[in-house]
Amino acid sequence: MPMITLLTDFGLNDEYAGMLKGILWSIAPTCHIVDLTHQIPPQDVLQAALMLGRVVPYFPAGSIHLAVVDPGVGTSRRPIAARLGEQFFVGPDNGLFTLPLLSAEKIGAPIEIVHLNQPAFWLPTLSASFHGRDLFAPVAAHLANGVPLAQLGSPVHDPQRLNLPTPEPIANGWRAHILHCDHFGNLATDLTRTETGTTALRVLISGQAIPFVNTFGDGQPGELIALFDSSDRLTLAVVNGNAAQRLNAAVGSSIEVYRI
Amino acid sequence: MPMITLLTDFGLNDEYAGMLKGILWSIAPTCHIVDLTHQIPPQDVLQAALMLGRVVPYFPAGSIHLAVVDPGVGTSRRPIAARLGEQFFVGPDNGLFTLPLLSAEKIGAPIEIVHLNQPAFWLPTLSASFHGRDLFAPVAAHLANGVPLAQLGSPVHDPQRLNLPTPEPIANGWRAHILHCDHFGNLATDLTRTETGTTALRVLISGQAIPFVNTFGDGQPGELIALFDSSDRLTLAVVNGNAAQRLNAAVGSSIEVYRI
Amino acid sequence: MPMITLLTDFGLNDEYAGMLKGILWSIAPTCHIVDLTHQIPPQDVLQAALMLGRVVPYFPAGSIHLAVVDPGVGTSRRPIAARLGEQFFVGPDNGLFTLPLLSAEKIGAPIEIVHLNQPAFWLPTLSASFHGRDLFAPVAAHLANGVPLAQLGSPVHDPQRLNLPTPEPIANGWRAHILHCDHFGNLATDLTRTETGTTALRVLISGQAIPFVNTFGDGQPGELIALFDSSDRLTLAVVNGNAAQRLNAAVGSSIEVYRI
Repeated sequence: MPMITLLTDFGLNDEYAGMLKGILWSIAPTCHIVDLTHQIPPQDVLQAALMLGRVVPYFPAGSIHLAVVDPGVGTSRRPIAARLGEQFFVGPDNGLFTLPLLSAEKIGAPIEIVHLNQPAFWLPTLSASFHGRDLFAPVAAHLANGVPLAQLGSPVHDPQRLNLPTPEPIANGWRAHILHCDHFGNLATDLTRTETGTTALRVLISGQAIPFVNTFGDGQPGELIALFDSSDRLTLAVVNGNAAQRLNAAVGSSIEVYRI
Repeated sequence: MPMITLLTDFGLNDEYAGMLKGILWSIAPTCHIVDLTHQIPPQDVLQAALMLGRVVPYFPAGSIHLAVVDPGVGTSRRPIAARLGEQFFVGPDNGLFTLPLLSAEKIGAPIEIVHLNQPAFWLPTLSASFHGRDLFAPVAAHLANGVPLAQLGSPVHDPQRLNLPTPEPIANGWRAHILHCDHFGNLATDLTRTETGTTALRVLISGQAIPFVNTFGDGQPGELIALFDSSDRLTLAVVNGNAAQRLNAAVGSSIEVYRI
Repeated sequence: MPMITLLTDFGLNDEYAGMLKGILWSIAPTCHIVDLTHQIPPQDVLQAALMLGRVVPYFPAGSIHLAVVDPGVGTSRRPIAARLGEQFFVGPDNGLFTLPLLSAEKIGAPIEIVHLNQPAFWLPTLSASFHGRDLFAPVAAHLANGVPLAQLGSPVHDPQRLNLPTPEPIANGWRAHILHCDHFGNLATDLTRTETGTTALRVLISGQAIPFVNTFGDGQPGELIALFDSSDRLTLAVVNGNAAQRLNAAVGSSIEVYRI
């Protein structure tokens, strides 16, 4: 009973995500389906890639991540499926899987990527604009049924990779960048605890110092704080409030972080 | 393990859709439940009916579509269930099922419709305003368990039908109407490829010509194009952009389409 | 195959709710998961508590309600799990479970509450800010697998309770308060049919009389009406319209209700 996750920019007003589920369960009736989100901003491959980076550590071996953020649908971009470490990935070859690919490379875990070019595993008709339904969902379901990657397509050795933002070194610290703003208005940056170690930090945005704390409970309701979030990214937050609104900051804004 | 789809105007802020699921799985614990959408604009029966028309071809025989867009709840409108072709439908008799009904009639497929008047298959108490919970969900679950339609109610021979917009013939072409705007701002019309055939087309909106292409990849990012979408409807789109915003167009706007 | 419901303020743009599902199914692969909503306004414990009050009567014995609206995460607020009557509840000890607790007390049903202090039933690492993922979801899954409450933590005898709004008695009636505004703009109050009995009522908001009816079908489309909703709360509604917009009223507004 493998888990298949869905990660798309389809939104929730249309039937698109439901169509994927209908096809998945038609082919693989015992799989579990987990919606990660369907609200990636349209065509925002980077935000989808970052989300996959956050979720993969919490899913079990054998999980299949079906990600359809596909600005290149109808062009020659390749449809791919991959085993990266102990999990599987299906979607367009546009860098969506950069983070699990880097993780697998880093630890020398198994990597196998194929160009999906075997129509026997797709719906009978391939539309020009909805490969999620016609190609990716059926392939993910066949994977769940145990079809080996090698049957689904030909080997790929040059998958697309995103250029991910990284912190810039500055004197005694880093210039970090806001990568992601969540529903609560928490602003996660590209600086991780792996990079900083456990030293105390001084955090500044637009010259304003922000108290660096261990957890939300160390701040007062309404206080702007900096802390490492549940994915170990340095994050700006307002206790029981919204940092994005408070700071009028967004993805791409930078902050300075100093060791103290 | 039949699939039950949910299509409502309940929104996602309230517990209404979750209540349906609780009841469905209480009665039919092995069914799969697929959310099509809960974001049909309140009381917009036409948008829900169009969505059912789009999804039915992709669901397997035996699927049960539970559709609750029900402006007439608490009036004398009939609750119905239907077999239309190889799939089943449960909801108010207000035209929601017009498209699968027309499809079934066109090909002479089996049609059986019943007025749901057997309270033994409902919750013990019928509220005045939430028949989705009290009547339609339990009936759909009993259908999933194999209860025949004939036990659920009395035959209906005059189901409500919507007047669906259709393209008007004009010299050498059609005046088509925008039926649906999706999450990406793509504007689907009432003109299908079945009607136009595979001829090349000239498409105009408010006198502006729009390039007619085969697929998104034939346009440049940001370009306004016309193409047949994944449901074979002539559709206006902006490549990696939003046609509804670009054109300031909405459901009901008309376009001209000419054979060339 | 117990049902686990999810009730959070996580929103739908992030992976947070999907992470809970991944963990639940990793530990308890045969459970059903029902999203009640993830759109509780951030940190609004009262709205979440009211929703639990509405849904519990419609879920079967053995259901597990995982509710994570947790403004106190990272403080000393206790994580708890409870059996209240025939259903189970997991979440922070901040009053979320007040309504099922009161119901269980009222009828003398079984009540057992524990402080979740057994890390053996959590994820290996407890983050400072996402106890839904690291603690509450794993505990809910272990409950679904049949682990007794007594193994999950130590007894609690003083759970937090919310002060719920209640109608104030006035001459020949009540001053009631709007508790909840739903997706349709219906405004539910704290006055229930249990309190009023089945007498006819005269309902006033800001001095304006509102027709009191039995069901939506008793009003004309566009008419402002008062009726008992599907949870038996006195509710203001516009037939096929939006009472919140019409009245420019919100949670906390009061109305007068008189017996006639």
